[in-house]
Amino acid sequence: MAEAPRLAIDAMGGDDGLTTMLAGVAIAAASDPELALTLVGQEKFVYPALESYPALKSRVSIVDAPDIIRGEDGLKSAIRISKTSSIGMAIDLVKQGKCGAAISGGNTAALMSIAKLMLKTMPGIDRPALAALTPTLGDNDVVILDVGANTECDMRNLFEFAVMGAAYARTILGLERPRVGLLNIGTEAQKGTDVIRDTAAALTNADNLALNFCGYVEGHKLSRGDFDVIVCDGFSGNIALKTLEGTARFVTDLLKRAFTSSIRSKFGFLISRPATELLRHHLDPNNHNGGVFLGLNGIVVKSHGSADAKGIANAIAVAARLVRADIARKIADDLANNSMKPAT
Amino acid sequence: MAEAPRLAIDAMGGDDGLTTMLAGVAIAAASDPELALTLVGQEKFVYPALESYPALKSRVSIVDAPDIIRGEDGLKSAIRISKTSSIGMAIDLVKQGKCGAAISGGNTAALMSIAKLMLKTMPGIDRPALAALTPTLGDNDVVILDVGANTECDMRNLFEFAVMGAAYARTILGLERPRVGLLNIGTEAQKGTDVIRDTAAALTNADNLALNFCGYVEGHKLSRGDFDVIVCDGFSGNIALKTLEGTARFVTDLLKRAFTSSIRSKFGFLISRPATELLRHHLDPNNHNGGVFLGLNGIVVKSHGSADAKGIANAIAVAARLVRADIARKIADDLANNSMKPAT
Repeated sequence: MAEAPRLAIDAMGGDDGLTTMLAGVAIAAASDPELALTLVGQEKFVYPALESYPALKSRVSIVDAPDIIRGEDGLKSAIRISKTSSIGMAIDLVKQGKCGAAISGGNTAALMSIAKLMLKTMPGIDRPALAALTPTLGDNDVVILDVGANTECDMRNLFEFAVMGAAYARTILGLERPRVGLLNIGTEAQKGTDVIRDTAAALTNADNLALNFCGYVEGHKLSRGDFDVIVCDGFSGNIALKTLEGTARFVTDLLKRAFTSSIRSKFGFLISRPATELLRHHLDPNNHNGGVFLGLNGIVVKSHGSADAKGIANAIAVAARLVRADIARKIADDLANNSMKPAT
Repeated sequence: MAEAPRLAIDAMGGDDGLTTMLAGVAIAAASDPELALTLVGQEKFVYPALESYPALKSRVSIVDAPDIIRGEDGLKSAIRISKTSSIGMAIDLVKQGKCGAAISGGNTAALMSIAKLMLKTMPGIDRPALAALTPTLGDNDVVILDVGANTECDMRNLFEFAVMGAAYARTILGLERPRVGLLNIGTEAQKGTDVIRDTAAALTNADNLALNFCGYVEGHKLSRGDFDVIVCDGFSGNIALKTLEGTARFVTDLLKRAFTSSIRSKFGFLISRPATELLRHHLDPNNHNGGVFLGLNGIVVKSHGSADAKGIANAIAVAARLVRADIARKIADDLANNSMKPAT
């Protein structure tokens, strides 16, 4: 808690590139005066771009990274240039202990692979997971993990995801004992795969975990606000998260179409605009931005490629909170406290 | 095409029971005068309930089924009473060739298991699949299969789902060469599991299939209208379908909350009501009702448990179209025509 968070920011990532990244960093810096920020990217572009943010200029240090990993780059070529890329050099600052977290809006697969290669998994953790936040009808967002780091998972992986997800929810959502659900195709005991049933048994029998295991959760309950953490393998989690985002967009597109279908409905729309703006705000991915890789020796936050400045600032704030809360220690403590560990 | 469809209807299934079922059957009978309908259920309740539908009464025959499988019944107890239950006796009429299809709004797991046990899979098909229809931004609904019949699938299963789903889309959506996508966590060739990559290769190499294989589809693209058929294992399909339905409900709930948040927005809502009614209509599951078990020796249609009379009539119409189109023959022909069969 004592030390101010030192964050390494990949200045070149994100669909809109440097300009939007800097706008986001400027918002984050202004709202959290303690942050120590390092921008990692091509110096020749970062310096001149910083001219537009005089207040930020005096706050940041710059690390020159000659290469950029593009969204369309394959894993092999990304890893080949990792040591000289903005993604890789930002993560390296975390590895060297110079920064507490790295933030990037770049190529997710590359970020994930390079982070795993450079930082390695925490002692006691078999595989890292990518955790996402999405809105609900309740007071809080819900944490879903894994959403794409591990296509196939065994019982130990899912068990550790539950522990890591709960630590994340305690840190970011401020909950004492997060309600954890296991994603499944029904709520009856016999539903799902052996891996899921074994994980449910292990979580039910585990003592001293700082979480409240609430059993299975089905796809239509993800956004109801009945759970704080949803645990799943990276394949079904990725399908669920993207289906959720796609359907929210689908319904709002239909709504737009409906509202523009007649003069009368256009008029009604104008009148109720403040209300629909609230809806838009609640669903805006920028307000839930910041997917986090949990289980590595260091914090890596993935900002949505399409995030705007506010979204980027949000991802940076998430990283700062995780550093301040020392989430890695929380996860390690939770695993050590559990008296009923699953077979490995 | 020559013979009128003969349909066996489980009169006791569905959350609202007999009354809603009969109301739905009455709508279906009135809109399709050729249908020959058999109601399967407890005679002592069906006869008196029919008094409210004089036009229907003269059109239907009744088969007495003493037992009812309830939603909360486990598989074992359901199968124990299957031969005397309304679900089992409706399916038996299909097995005996007395009816071309069975329709039920009852316990899905029981319906699926009893249908498999009684009807067996079609020659050349390894496993049946449950196919669902869901709305899109395009002109047509999209077919998703499997949405819950098979938790784990191999390449042969997914390949056959593609063939069966395409035959279904040709029949129900009237498309000549449906665009088929394989559900995955990315669109790049290396994404997903071995099973998915092998299936993509088999579908790419297959000749003479009456479908247009369009590669991988991610969760956020399900409702865009770019695909007619989405193929997946029953686990991820169930997660995707339920997440889709749950998110549509979540967004409309948020919208309702937004519209009732102030007097001004309530007023705007009243004015734009015809537009939002259109949205409601488009998303109403009753307009997309009728999940179909494909790949069995006989057609079994699952009506949503919560379907209203209109929804039930829709499921009956789906069954009638599948009988008229002789979908089982279509699927068998497609498999036989494929010159590049996957290894079994």
